[in-house]
Amino acid sequence: MAANERSWDRQRANREQRLARARERLGAGLQGKIVDTNLVQELMHQVIECGDRVCLEGNNQKQADFLARTLASLDAGRVNDLHMLQSVLALPEHLDVFDKGIAAKLDFSFSGPQAGRLAKLVSAGKLNIGAIHTYLELFGRYFIDLTPQVALVAAQAADRHGNLYTGPNTEDTPAIVEATAFKSGIVIAQVNEIVDVLPRIDIPADWVDFAVAAPTPHYIEPLFTRDPALISEIQVLMAMMAIKGIYGEYQVERLNHGIGFDTAAIELLLPTYAASLGLKGKIGRNWALNPHPALIPAIEAGFVETVHSFGSELGMEDYVRARPDVFFTGPDGSMRSNRAFSQVAGHYACDMFIGSTLQIDLQGNSSTATLGRISGFGGAPNMGADARGRRHASPAWLKAGEEARRGTNAMPRGRKLVVQMVETFREHMQPAFVETLDAWQLAEQAKMAIPPVMIYGDDVTHILTEEGIANLLLCRTEEEREQAIRGVAGYTPVGLARDARMVENLRDRGIVKRPEDLGIDKRLATRDLLAARNMKDLVRASHGLYKPPKQFRNW
Amino acid sequence: MAANERSWDRQRANREQRLARARERLGAGLQGKIVDTNLVQELMHQVIECGDRVCLEGNNQKQADFLARTLASLDAGRVNDLHMLQSVLALPEHLDVFDKGIAAKLDFSFSGPQAGRLAKLVSAGKLNIGAIHTYLELFGRYFIDLTPQVALVAAQAADRHGNLYTGPNTEDTPAIVEATAFKSGIVIAQVNEIVDVLPRIDIPADWVDFAVAAPTPHYIEPLFTRDPALISEIQVLMAMMAIKGIYGEYQVERLNHGIGFDTAAIELLLPTYAASLGLKGKIGRNWALNPHPALIPAIEAGFVETVHSFGSELGMEDYVRARPDVFFTGPDGSMRSNRAFSQVAGHYACDMFIGSTLQIDLQGNSSTATLGRISGFGGAPNMGADARGRRHASPAWLKAGEEARRGTNAMPRGRKLVVQMVETFREHMQPAFVETLDAWQLAEQAKMAIPPVMIYGDDVTHILTEEGIANLLLCRTEEEREQAIRGVAGYTPVGLARDARMVENLRDRGIVKRPEDLGIDKRLATRDLLAARNMKDLVRASHGLYKPPKQFRNW
Repeated sequence: MAANERSWDRQRANREQRLARARERLGAGLQGKIVDTNLVQELMHQVIECGDRVCLEGNNQKQADFLARTLASLDAGRVNDLHMLQSVLALPEHLDVFDKGIAAKLDFSFSGPQAGRLAKLVSAGKLNIGAIHTYLELFGRYFIDLTPQVALVAAQAADRHGNLYTGPNTEDTPAIVEATAFKSGIVIAQVNEIVDVLPRIDIPADWVDFAVAAPTPHYIEPLFTRDPALISEIQVLMAMMAIKGIYGEYQVERLNHGIGFDTAAIELLLPTYAASLGLKGKIGRNWALNPHPALIPAIEAGFVETVHSFGSELGMEDYVRARPDVFFTGPDGSMRSNRAFSQVAGHYACDMFIGSTLQIDLQGNSSTATLGRISGFGGAPNMGADARGRRHASPAWLKAGEEARRGTNAMPRGRKLVVQMVETFREHMQPAFVETLDAWQLAEQAKMAIPPVMIYGDDVTHILTEEGIANLLLCRTEEEREQAIRGVAGYTPVGLARDARMVENLRDRGIVKRPEDLGIDKRLATRDLLAARNMKDLVRASHGLYKPPKQFRNW
Repeated sequence: MAANERSWDRQRANREQRLARARERLGAGLQGKIVDTNLVQELMHQVIECGDRVCLEGNNQKQADFLARTLASLDAGRVNDLHMLQSVLALPEHLDVFDKGIAAKLDFSFSGPQAGRLAKLVSAGKLNIGAIHTYLELFGRYFIDLTPQVALVAAQAADRHGNLYTGPNTEDTPAIVEATAFKSGIVIAQVNEIVDVLPRIDIPADWVDFAVAAPTPHYIEPLFTRDPALISEIQVLMAMMAIKGIYGEYQVERLNHGIGFDTAAIELLLPTYAASLGLKGKIGRNWALNPHPALIPAIEAGFVETVHSFGSELGMEDYVRARPDVFFTGPDGSMRSNRAFSQVAGHYACDMFIGSTLQIDLQGNSSTATLGRISGFGGAPNMGADARGRRHASPAWLKAGEEARRGTNAMPRGRKLVVQMVETFREHMQPAFVETLDAWQLAEQAKMAIPPVMIYGDDVTHILTEEGIANLLLCRTEEEREQAIRGVAGYTPVGLARDARMVENLRDRGIVKRPEDLGIDKRLATRDLLAARNMKDLVRASHGLYKPPKQFRNW
């Protein structure tokens, strides 16, 4: 090669060097692609270089916990300045790498339980946040400007060639591995077991460099399980309003539900209240949803036709396996999840996203960011945004679009229904409605370019509280929108500051609807309407197929 | 099973029946998963049932042409009422199935060369269009309400187990196969050859039911090749305006280019004009793009850091293989494309989409639909829409968002740059600017719920013609927007009807910019600026690695 000629395979050459170092140091501890469990720390020292972009599989549920622990045990003098790419920060180890000086930069989506510590590390200058993303956005960047040099993933099992079985908990693995393996990166998988023959191959061995049997099965959290016993009658009332005032009104057939008791109440009212309204077969037919236990009664009642899932849910394995007409399952009978495709479906193929939030401002912007906590967004921004690239029509999408356009001369276009469902006061009597989101202060503290808003007001179509539904699609001015929001904000300061006459006018125009406007008798809003009132009812509804995790077995 | 008990594995049982029929009828013509080429028609008769949703792999480039031909040869008395799901209708056979009464319904994305015949079949009542989609939207529906019962796909090679190698032309295959295989559907792959050992495994055999060696390699079209000899000096001028007035102005690092000579001109001006402006390293670094031959000089000049591709491009195989630092390649050295992930990246990880269109109205809505042709949208709606779920910031995104927000009190938010680039008159002196899109009449003819708009005016940020750039982000009223559009519409009737004074006012405010406002000397807009002026120059720039298809070898 001439001196002035550029080399175009530096990444591949570098990869070969890393692999050669690993082979040399691991010796007999490396059999093909299978690494001796005790040598994983050494493996990482050989294949990870300072400054690498490292994608650690931290999912909504599944965690590559053994690899996370091992990464946090590396010698920061040898491996440092890592740029971590991660869907979810769930475990203490996910932040230990920053505390110990092994990693310096972070791009992520959600930090749930670690949100407080994350904020502290940022303040202490130990962690530089690149950006907070919605999952699908982060996956997109893996193929553009944040391609990992090293991916540390988790699978159920590997065979001796290095093929992986991710089973029901596939989640983010395909997206991570594809981006890494096809750009000369290195893929290391921790597996629960190494077997001769896999139930099915989910990731071909060609895409995997190393597999290691972890000392314990990977950590997984039952994030979507809600005990029906904890659903309040206020939540039953809100669920009735949602079903009659939104699901039925727009004939919402394809949808996603956020996590929480509010949406669990809706799920449990489908076979009872919704059925009594004659809505079976007309609403809630096709879902992008993890296998929520609360959905079992609706499935059994024949309400639900299909469910495609981002990830699985602990305890639902046998139930899903026994309902392949509803769920996506593999030739081995177990579920197939895939967060990337389910998020695509949630964005483009669903008519509605409904979820909860912590704070809503007078423009309808909402955020789960509160002071001292950098919690991230997860999938909500992707699903809770109008999918402006969507072109296929459905009755729900056309009706929402028609309402948004009414009285204007804009080009006809549909609209996604984005519903924020909140009680006016959340725990500790914190008002859910505020003049100014905490996100503004947080942005200043953490030096973000703009406030971390989860769902923007102009994407929200309805706000639902125990006081009623505000239909923001029909608002034509900023003032109308503000009064519609105040009009369902109850006894919060924001609600009390309403212009009562204007709110009554909005009510006359159908922009604000109270339960009585919807023909809902509040006295019927009792827990008796729930198709399952406790965990045991869910198990019974599943014909014993659902096996709740221990912490939910309270009978 | 009790009489009143519901069965939950009807799909799987049905699948087993289909497979059993195939095994019985094919006998020795079926070796494992490998089907005798002469028996594919018989196979289809056994595994396809009336009314099935059949996904036929018709991609932007790669076509499952043998399977398409065979499908069109089935006995319509035995197999009919099929619901075809297809990204692209490219071949006559794709419509023959409707003409012959084998299929009745169609959901698709793009129909390019078949657009005229498609419109005729719709008029004749032989074909019922479900909807026109953007690619990623159609993939999303595969997991929600349009899951295929049968998928007919194309791969480069299969091994004797049925593992598939899709190589550089992976395109849509993973999305189609995953949706079908994990919902008890049947996957049939045509391959160019059956080999003992694949260069790499792209689709595991567990996801494939049948593989057949096609009599000829699958059809593939060099859709993204543009001969630089055909680039006009008007296009050079427009490319200069794009580079100085948009790419440089917003510092656009991550982007996608639509197909066409307009964007090819930009690609060929990067190493010359853009470099002379000092923009190397500041614009056009990371791309979601097929391997455009016109990008070769910019790659060689070190302008381009990475390219992730939807599909490949004929003749670029060796060049891509020799540039793995830039392109995504597999362990075998050949490219990895993936339309689903590249569309996700185009939507969420790119700061700009720039493409051409056929008609633009006074609100900035644009469409490629013209009378008598139902051509569809391809990837443009997905990439040419503001990604409202995006949360990570970049300078380009923030600046566009700031311009959109200026003078309002909306929540700060970024904006995607969506640029429509057109000459004011297209071929046959048809004006590109119109009072009313043909899409309105087409919607009426084809009984669509709403007009088929490719990119909506409120998603477009800039319109670029030979007369100048209209920055719609800065327009605050409908009237301003209309005059900004008229102000770059040249001598079209729409352009001539401008309010000249208002346009001058918009020019003073930087909303309309002429070449001279950008400091561009029109006399310099000559073909001399192109880094390659013909196909041979491209081959030379590639060091002989690029091998243009025969129809482009004009030297």
